[in-house]
Amino acid sequence: MRQAGRYLPEYRDIRGDRDILETIRIPDEAVEITLQPLRRMPLDAAILFSDIVVPLVAIGIPFRIEAGRGPVLDEPFRSRRHVARLRPLEPEVDEPYTLEAVRALADELDVPLLGFAGAPFTLASYLVEGGPSRDHARTKALMFADPLTWEALMGALVDVVVPHLRAQVGAGASALQVFDPWVGALAPAHYRAYVLPHMRRLFEGIADLTVPVIHFGVGTSELLELMRDAGGAAIGIDHRTPLDRAWERLGHATAIQGNLDPAVLLAPWEVVEREALDVLDRAGGRAGHVFNLGHGVLPDTPVENLQRLVDLVHARSERDG
Amino acid sequence: MRQAGRYLPEYRDIRGDRDILETIRIPDEAVEITLQPLRRMPLDAAILFSDIVVPLVAIGIPFRIEAGRGPVLDEPFRSRRHVARLRPLEPEVDEPYTLEAVRALADELDVPLLGFAGAPFTLASYLVEGGPSRDHARTKALMFADPLTWEALMGALVDVVVPHLRAQVGAGASALQVFDPWVGALAPAHYRAYVLPHMRRLFEGIADLTVPVIHFGVGTSELLELMRDAGGAAIGIDHRTPLDRAWERLGHATAIQGNLDPAVLLAPWEVVEREALDVLDRAGGRAGHVFNLGHGVLPDTPVENLQRLVDLVHARSERDG
Repeated sequence: MRQAGRYLPEYRDIRGDRDILETIRIPDEAVEITLQPLRRMPLDAAILFSDIVVPLVAIGIPFRIEAGRGPVLDEPFRSRRHVARLRPLEPEVDEPYTLEAVRALADELDVPLLGFAGAPFTLASYLVEGGPSRDHARTKALMFADPLTWEALMGALVDVVVPHLRAQVGAGASALQVFDPWVGALAPAHYRAYVLPHMRRLFEGIADLTVPVIHFGVGTSELLELMRDAGGAAIGIDHRTPLDRAWERLGHATAIQGNLDPAVLLAPWEVVEREALDVLDRAGGRAGHVFNLGHGVLPDTPVENLQRLVDLVHARSERDG
Repeated sequence: MRQAGRYLPEYRDIRGDRDILETIRIPDEAVEITLQPLRRMPLDAAILFSDIVVPLVAIGIPFRIEAGRGPVLDEPFRSRRHVARLRPLEPEVDEPYTLEAVRALADELDVPLLGFAGAPFTLASYLVEGGPSRDHARTKALMFADPLTWEALMGALVDVVVPHLRAQVGAGASALQVFDPWVGALAPAHYRAYVLPHMRRLFEGIADLTVPVIHFGVGTSELLELMRDAGGAAIGIDHRTPLDRAWERLGHATAIQGNLDPAVLLAPWEVVEREALDVLDRAGGRAGHVFNLGHGVLPDTPVENLQRLVDLVHARSERDG
């Protein structure tokens, strides 16, 4: 999950009013922002400061990031003609700044660096809706009404995402996250028909890499088994599915990342502690549990709550061996 | 689910540019808009044209409805002082237009009229966020950080919702829907602690009424058993949970309303037919199935698809007896 962000005053200082995509394209600043949370807390890993639309911008899709809204595209994708604008990513040429930041971080860090990419469904939604969407209606309308264009779109996105992930590992990332926050909008039968084959091709495209891959979604209670079958060493879940229920469905051989509700961190420490212990209790000390929030850190989160949370989780891990 | 709406040209004609809350307060227009879909399609029931914030506006909470966004409140609820602005609803005094519309419709209709109300969590979210929200972070922050204020807020909302529902039945509504679209944002343990007691009190407050009550939510895969325990003759689910899986969890004694993805209706008829038959197959002809969309009709939906869908569902019901 993104660790950097507006909850840190030093992040707000370095970002100022600049466009976030402009900041990401300056390797020194991406490195600095990636390191900021680690100077505050002894985190077990760092996650590259970037954005899921970066590789799309890198091949010429003119997303901008609107503050308080997210990625916006003025001419949304609605037809085969739009899909033709996508081409396979060539990271060394198209996004050298990403690789430069990853190399510098891999040199500097004492903990693993996570690279990441948006998954095809989530990227498709931004392309088709032209921005964040509650119901993803136009995306699903394209999927249902024009399956050939949908296949072309999803296939082209896999050819952007796979090189993006491979290049991050080539530059020194030691783990990856495939980030599919919007896929929970689909019924399982539709995930199976319209998304799963592309996710399989994505995971096949990085199968020879030796790094662990976390496969994350939001609101995916009904999709967990299909996401596991698609690929990933660990499945990332949000707070909606209790960890113990997720393991019941996935089997105990699957590692799970999650899943404290980020809104809990807005409450006093006593509440954070109680809720974090509940998550850890549901994990029952399993080696296959990667503690995390169920989604990104909210802007108003007190840093002290995060710091104490990291200490609490470490103390419990040591106790449980 | 709301049947009227922007997909009907006659709805756009009657609404014009007027504020939706203003239209709702004119009984003749609310009646006319309620009847519009029934003139197009032989629906099995009508649902009152209204909005979940109507009873809140009726007691003086100044929501307005922004086109394309939803209910907006300029001074959101953040403290006990705000909660004190809520008082029990007195329908005959506070919202005579609602009762007048219900009476006129009950006289005129050959099919059952559904009344409805927003559930306390969903109403609390609009009050605390000041508008629609993706993560409901401020709502949950209040819930976690200040449980006493949260209890007061939820309790006060039950005292608005119960009279609103009772009055609709008193005026002639023959079924009710309790509408909780945002409650799927909660983990089951948090639903149990912070919402379930209030939902129980709500359903107890209408238990003596002889009409069936549908209890609806979105993204509630993990909450279904708790929602059933809270109350309602039928549980309404969105498209994310397949009907057969929902029955596995709820037991076959529970009636279920649902659950075609509304986005399917944006596709050609062949796709609508295939997907509707899949929903009906999962229901397996059970008497406890109430066919519906998983959420409201999307604005760009072709009316013809809805008309053919109603005919398809009727034909299958007759075939299955």
